[in-house]
Amino acid sequence: MRRTITGFSNPAVKFLRSLRDKKYRKREQRFLAEGLRLLTDAREAGRLPELLAMSSTRTPHPLLDALEADVAAAGGDVIEMDEALLAKITGKDNPQSVCGVFAEWGTSLAQIDRVAAPIWLVAQALRDPGNLGTLLRTGDAVGAGGLILIDDCADPFSVEAVRASMGAIFTQAVAQANWAEFIAWLRQGAGQLVAASLRDAQPYRGAPYAAPCFILIGNESRGLPQDYEHACDLRVTVPMLGRADSLNAAVAGAVLAYEALANLKP
Amino acid sequence: MRRTITGFSNPAVKFLRSLRDKKYRKREQRFLAEGLRLLTDAREAGRLPELLAMSSTRTPHPLLDALEADVAAAGGDVIEMDEALLAKITGKDNPQSVCGVFAEWGTSLAQIDRVAAPIWLVAQALRDPGNLGTLLRTGDAVGAGGLILIDDCADPFSVEAVRASMGAIFTQAVAQANWAEFIAWLRQGAGQLVAASLRDAQPYRGAPYAAPCFILIGNESRGLPQDYEHACDLRVTVPMLGRADSLNAAVAGAVLAYEALANLKP
Repeated sequence: MRRTITGFSNPAVKFLRSLRDKKYRKREQRFLAEGLRLLTDAREAGRLPELLAMSSTRTPHPLLDALEADVAAAGGDVIEMDEALLAKITGKDNPQSVCGVFAEWGTSLAQIDRVAAPIWLVAQALRDPGNLGTLLRTGDAVGAGGLILIDDCADPFSVEAVRASMGAIFTQAVAQANWAEFIAWLRQGAGQLVAASLRDAQPYRGAPYAAPCFILIGNESRGLPQDYEHACDLRVTVPMLGRADSLNAAVAGAVLAYEALANLKP
Repeated sequence: MRRTITGFSNPAVKFLRSLRDKKYRKREQRFLAEGLRLLTDAREAGRLPELLAMSSTRTPHPLLDALEADVAAAGGDVIEMDEALLAKITGKDNPQSVCGVFAEWGTSLAQIDRVAAPIWLVAQALRDPGNLGTLLRTGDAVGAGGLILIDDCADPFSVEAVRASMGAIFTQAVAQANWAEFIAWLRQGAGQLVAASLRDAQPYRGAPYAAPCFILIGNESRGLPQDYEHACDLRVTVPMLGRADSLNAAVAGAVLAYEALANLKP
């Protein structure tokens, strides 16, 4: 059954809006995804929102009809509200005409099946949710298995990360761990840990990448701690021909991931 | 002479704050850059702020002393204010302790010396200032000459673009033009126009990139118009092994630029 909601003080509106805040997201173990495209990506990946919120002025679309039917069939909630109210939730002037609330899923290392993919992205203390989402999106493109978040990273379930992932949050595995947990887990099986480095490194181009290849990207301002670099099996240098000594974190991850992909392929 | 400013209603504070808004930036032909690192990059590139604003609680630094001396010697303005006031200008909770106002410079195609660099980045209708700044940063890294902005792009002098460029706004050339102007200019001399495409394209890896190589990146949502793709001399495909059919714009530019760099090198 579709319900219509009219007031900003409605509990459902307050709940939806609260999910923009990490504190409430973590308490509720729920997150928001906006837009029909993202919600359709989720549906195709087998993830349905528990709650679907639609603008009363939305343009009809068969994919939205299919989504609404699936949510209702799964026992989910469907609510309709005017566009101004939806804009309050999404915090944007031109809101998407639909958004959904998803239950977060587990992000333990134990769920990572390392041999399921030749490439894994690993980010350390990544602070920018846009970079995090962009790494997920790149992971999808290179056929990676997922993104492992080391130490204190941005929240993969934030609206910004989900949006930047362009749906990859629903298809790439995501794990969270501290460095000690990660390195202990990594060394229990096959896995080559690779990082870009200026020290004791070989050219990134044509380097001996080996699957499963774990590509480690450091914090946006500080890069990787030196002992994390030392723990890598392969350190590579990416040409830096200008004045700067580093790339954007998501860009660095992509350049290494595509190089690994080209060298891992038969 | 260093002046101290105390009130939010001070004209200098209002002026600085107004530069966060594109309308005022364009009217004043001035832009803001924040942080000692960025201002030092500017200084080393031969660009000094007309006005330097510093927090009264800043940590002393020899590079800041050198910057202040240079600004004063060039007849610029140096003002000091408390951190809360500087936070109002920069719009951040943890403001950098220094920011500067720069005069914008010309961005006509006429200033581009195409043979001065083997690679040029070209973005079409790029809407995200973070992507724009990241492309400038990547351009610096690959030894590109600069970034040409086609059609209606984000403002390269916005605070977000300047910040994401990590100083490359001061060293990379920036030009703005519409497509007709650009293509007319391009065909007046040497230049290979390259784009990622799904149609009539060859693998991006090892493709015959030739200097000066102009790498064209399309709009974040819509990609490149089909006739722009047709106008390219080389169309290449980047592997997309997952569900999505595109990369983040700044990521796509970087993957192509690094591939071009590897193939252009002797």
